[in-house]
Amino acid sequence: MNEAVRKLAEAQARSGSLLSVGVEPAPEYLPGHYPHTLTGYRDFLVDLIEATAGRVCAYKFNWAFFESHGWQGVRMMYDVREAIPEGTIVIADAKRGDIGSTAKHYARAVFDEFAADAVTLNPLMGHDSALPFLEYGERLSFFLVLTSNPGASDFLLPEGLYRRIATAISEKWNERGNCGFVAGATRPEQVGELRAIAPRVPFLIPGIGAQGGALEETLAAGAAGEGHPGMVLHVTRGILPGADEEGHVKDIIHRKVDQWNQRIAKAGQERP
Amino acid sequence: MNEAVRKLAEAQARSGSLLSVGVEPAPEYLPGHYPHTLTGYRDFLVDLIEATAGRVCAYKFNWAFFESHGWQGVRMMYDVREAIPEGTIVIADAKRGDIGSTAKHYARAVFDEFAADAVTLNPLMGHDSALPFLEYGERLSFFLVLTSNPGASDFLLPEGLYRRIATAISEKWNERGNCGFVAGATRPEQVGELRAIAPRVPFLIPGIGAQGGALEETLAAGAAGEGHPGMVLHVTRGILPGADEEGHVKDIIHRKVDQWNQRIAKAGQERP
Repeated sequence: MNEAVRKLAEAQARSGSLLSVGVEPAPEYLPGHYPHTLTGYRDFLVDLIEATAGRVCAYKFNWAFFESHGWQGVRMMYDVREAIPEGTIVIADAKRGDIGSTAKHYARAVFDEFAADAVTLNPLMGHDSALPFLEYGERLSFFLVLTSNPGASDFLLPEGLYRRIATAISEKWNERGNCGFVAGATRPEQVGELRAIAPRVPFLIPGIGAQGGALEETLAAGAAGEGHPGMVLHVTRGILPGADEEGHVKDIIHRKVDQWNQRIAKAGQERP
Repeated sequence: MNEAVRKLAEAQARSGSLLSVGVEPAPEYLPGHYPHTLTGYRDFLVDLIEATAGRVCAYKFNWAFFESHGWQGVRMMYDVREAIPEGTIVIADAKRGDIGSTAKHYARAVFDEFAADAVTLNPLMGHDSALPFLEYGERLSFFLVLTSNPGASDFLLPEGLYRRIATAISEKWNERGNCGFVAGATRPEQVGELRAIAPRVPFLIPGIGAQGGALEETLAAGAAGEGHPGMVLHVTRGILPGADEEGHVKDIIHRKVDQWNQRIAKAGQERP
């Protein structure tokens, strides 16, 4: 088991949680009393991290939301990264993908500069575009295999492209055991197919917040066997205060994370 | 014709050049006397821009090379962007692609914050992932259709995926006339196929520096008809001083750009 996968397994065991929390300065869900400034976003994100520390296994930084604030937003992202507790997985959700000589620089950015444990990548350009990331043998690369958005029907589903991507990664790209899949929770049937193709590969599963109905099926379909961290379940809005919710932000987040963890534990026991 | 395409046509007419120049702080080809510091890279890139101003139609910023220097590198990228002469196209070579709610933020980053005229995008996640960029009706989105690297044989070539991507973009995504293709110069035959699918779409063509042999064929295959900017030909290393080349950096770049422009003009007249 590679270092990032082992760290993930340990973080899941210690926190008792499969949850990854979204770290993103989004105007749509910044709680009311934080100002819409870079300082306001930073304070909120640090509070979010403090309120969830020890209760989740991972934090996923969505780079887009920081980049949309210019270089000052990127500086703030590095600043917030300092608040992540030791022993928790940091995922750079950057969806990068480019020819090898360029990909090398993206890999340096996420793994050396940002010190992420894991990254999300776009596999479209093929093996040589992934290699600079895979050469970081002790980090983890989650490749887009099947996304939860409608556009997955444009290219990923037709001609079974998602299966061919999953097979190539599982058979050839995963030599060092440091590959994972991004697989949307909106399609539990396909999550099962992907698990059959890649019995031990960790899945990063977005979309459980909005579509909790598929939770039981997804947990059953994605399991990788005892001791293997088969799934990271990602939530962002699902643990944040609603627009008209009263109370202290950290308390609300506390409660919602615990509810999610209980719900996942229960759904895991009730696997269909 | 949309505003960015018209601006590109005008820039090509005024400069008499189809060239796009790579703006990237790469340790591999920083000329000898510039220090390997952020200031050294910035000075070199500004000199590169000054030496090519009026002789090329576009500058392509490869974001990876800046990001690998952390947030300070991103700040430097914004700084260098200020040096781009008016009336020249700025391409943010970022290869972004994500679900709509995230893509919206990437679009803001490249178009609002960085003020790019054009961006490179990864189409794998489908139409809804592209929409936030396409809604910028007066900018230009170049989608990866067929790349010049070996990995294009992994997913883009099999089952004619590149043709399906090109067809979807041409028929559905290009409602506002603001789509382009990234098409590698290493495959002139496929460039011709893509031109047949999309008669007027501008192509961003990397790879001419290293594989000049295909220049005539590419120019013939990619032409979009009188008055339409069918192609942007991208060079980076091809116009930079070699490791053992003597002389003033700006003079060398001057000379090499002019040589490339002459070579392209000649190849265009000798179309097979």
